[in-house]
Amino acid sequence: MKEKLVSKEEALELLFSKWNPEIVTEVVPVYEAFGRTLAEDMYALYDIPVVRASSMDGVAFNYAAYEADPDTTGWKLGVDYCRADTGDDFPDEFDSVVKIEDVELLPEGGLRFHLPEGQTIKKNMNVKPSGANYRKGELLAKAGRMLNPQLLSSIASGGYAEVKVVRMPVVGYIPTGSELVGIGEKPDRGQNINSNSILVYGMVLEMGAIPVCYPIVKDDMDSIERAMKTALAQCDAVLLSGGSSKGEEDFSFRVMDKCGELLMHGVKCVPGRPMSIALVDGKPCVNISGPALAAMNCLDWCVSAIVGKMLGVKPHAYPEVDAVLDGLQTVPGGMELLTTLDLYRDEEGRYHAVPIKPELKPGEQPQKGPGGPKSRQAQAFQGKAMYRSALGESSHQAGDVIRVKMICSPEEAEL
Amino acid sequence: MKEKLVSKEEALELLFSKWNPEIVTEVVPVYEAFGRTLAEDMYALYDIPVVRASSMDGVAFNYAAYEADPDTTGWKLGVDYCRADTGDDFPDEFDSVVKIEDVELLPEGGLRFHLPEGQTIKKNMNVKPSGANYRKGELLAKAGRMLNPQLLSSIASGGYAEVKVVRMPVVGYIPTGSELVGIGEKPDRGQNINSNSILVYGMVLEMGAIPVCYPIVKDDMDSIERAMKTALAQCDAVLLSGGSSKGEEDFSFRVMDKCGELLMHGVKCVPGRPMSIALVDGKPCVNISGPALAAMNCLDWCVSAIVGKMLGVKPHAYPEVDAVLDGLQTVPGGMELLTTLDLYRDEEGRYHAVPIKPELKPGEQPQKGPGGPKSRQAQAFQGKAMYRSALGESSHQAGDVIRVKMICSPEEAEL
Repeated sequence: MKEKLVSKEEALELLFSKWNPEIVTEVVPVYEAFGRTLAEDMYALYDIPVVRASSMDGVAFNYAAYEADPDTTGWKLGVDYCRADTGDDFPDEFDSVVKIEDVELLPEGGLRFHLPEGQTIKKNMNVKPSGANYRKGELLAKAGRMLNPQLLSSIASGGYAEVKVVRMPVVGYIPTGSELVGIGEKPDRGQNINSNSILVYGMVLEMGAIPVCYPIVKDDMDSIERAMKTALAQCDAVLLSGGSSKGEEDFSFRVMDKCGELLMHGVKCVPGRPMSIALVDGKPCVNISGPALAAMNCLDWCVSAIVGKMLGVKPHAYPEVDAVLDGLQTVPGGMELLTTLDLYRDEEGRYHAVPIKPELKPGEQPQKGPGGPKSRQAQAFQGKAMYRSALGESSHQAGDVIRVKMICSPEEAEL
Repeated sequence: MKEKLVSKEEALELLFSKWNPEIVTEVVPVYEAFGRTLAEDMYALYDIPVVRASSMDGVAFNYAAYEADPDTTGWKLGVDYCRADTGDDFPDEFDSVVKIEDVELLPEGGLRFHLPEGQTIKKNMNVKPSGANYRKGELLAKAGRMLNPQLLSSIASGGYAEVKVVRMPVVGYIPTGSELVGIGEKPDRGQNINSNSILVYGMVLEMGAIPVCYPIVKDDMDSIERAMKTALAQCDAVLLSGGSSKGEEDFSFRVMDKCGELLMHGVKCVPGRPMSIALVDGKPCVNISGPALAAMNCLDWCVSAIVGKMLGVKPHAYPEVDAVLDGLQTVPGGMELLTTLDLYRDEEGRYHAVPIKPELKPGEQPQKGPGGPKSRQAQAFQGKAMYRSALGESSHQAGDVIRVKMICSPEEAEL
């Protein structure tokens, strides 16, 4: 067991030097592929348009015939011209399209073209050639892309109803702690609600993996070991929450140490310093600190990297924006810090980040921690952004511009 | 039927002046509430910690007893002190905690405190008071917030297993066009693949609504009317694709006009100018242009606003970043433009946006349209960003900074 604190990067390097998961793929219908990671480059199966298509609502005609005799008043529908609307193919004898706004249809079936000033009739005008939208063999989407509606629409247009994607990793979560009660239960003195399960559930979903939240396990070596072994058999990675530090009942990392190879214990990153990573049965196990912000921190830097590794892509990231700091953001010495801030956009479109301070009632103790004043959870988790400081970084003053990660939907930061 | 082109804003104002949907709510388990819109302010039901909690792994003791006699070597476990780990409550007779790293446990059961230089034993040290994380009655989350893992964790910690959210609106989509074949079918000459269904499906999901994609309907007034009426009975809003312009078989807006009140036809926004909005049976119907980029445009500005109205929140927005333009971005006169661009981040962390140009083969016609050169679909939909110009805006030169919307996951734009 290594007691020396390591950086986030060192912790992941330790893990990835010993664990290199195989990328597993599966084929799913395009309708079930949103947010999935594409497993192979995809190329169009067909030319679209197959032959050609009018790019306007209009009439199609033969340019050579028009050039030979530009008097179109005696033309006959179906012989000298036909209707060809946007996207329509038309008979081989025609090759050019004039848009309907520029066509006068005469009662006898003939027509007159009235092109706007400066425009002339040209061969092939308003006609999209074969393959103008999709050319057979052309790249539709590169392996590793996360499939969005646009890419899936292209893949469908390229001729596919199914798509090969990376299998979603399954991440198990075991909440440990005799003091925990279930969500919806009333906590008695000394008890706490197992709300980390929903935090893990949601964040693991955001990362593109399948969360499996197991029942609460009491503080007992054997129970934790049994739960971990069950989860390891069912999942690709296992998270144990609580019991991560130096408490008497901190069994989680001891179980990981007993059953596998403990790679590190303690990270230079707060909140959540006393976390650990082990390889057990060839799978990563992470012991996450219990406090909610600590758990969020570990999920964001560590679990997302593990999931990214299994997906074969960069770890899930939140959108980043530069924001003017409306207040002081303290940063601890010798430690990275993750904190949440409020976020809004001013009338000029600039983002502002607001540090979240607890409003203490008279007689309360101000809660201090290594990262500066600790916020009440209730306030911290209403924050719309998170800020992650680097090792050795100085504190930031009001007016400084810092780069924050949006954890709200973008429209929620708008005025 | 109004033929006059209106701006996007005017189009929505016309609709919202006549249509003001009721916000419908429902109660769902917290585990099913991700991405949903919270329907009411929520307040904590309990104080957490219920009484108090140690904020460190350590030993709890009575400060007054220590002050009276600081010799702790004769203390007895369970009488003069007890173990109190992070988050633990402890007996009423104790009030302060020294962290375990600063405690020497003596073999006889007594102990010695070894605090770091400059630190002293203080009353209430390392103890979180009742309600330090959640105070009964404190705000957990405001109505209108989109529920993320953090807010749901707070709501669970506040005592709730269920949450009142806005019902997800149901948006029906009817693809019209005799030339369409289903996804996975091989298109013959003149045919096209119904790939817009998957585009609509995905984008409507992104907006927070439930998409219902109906089967392809042939170009026939009666068939379209029947399909629209069915969809209107089952959905909160209905989208008809294709048949939106001046073609001979452009029946969709005519059906909307016949069955309801056509509010506008034609918007100053390309691609997808010939779209229309109607109120039919008191519900919004939107006729979307068939070309894929045109459909994406209409979904992004119009359908998202309609869904936002039903959710009672601002319309869905993509994350926005300022990006250096690597190339020319032309903007049409008198029209807004939506276009896609590639996006990447350079080594300094600055985003760059790259216009997407089709690479035409020799002999091919360059495809021109109102928004400048038209891209091949296959290339346009690999773009990681979209850019929306304002009315009256000028074109942008290489090196200009423009604000683009990310349509990829943020990590996909990283180096």
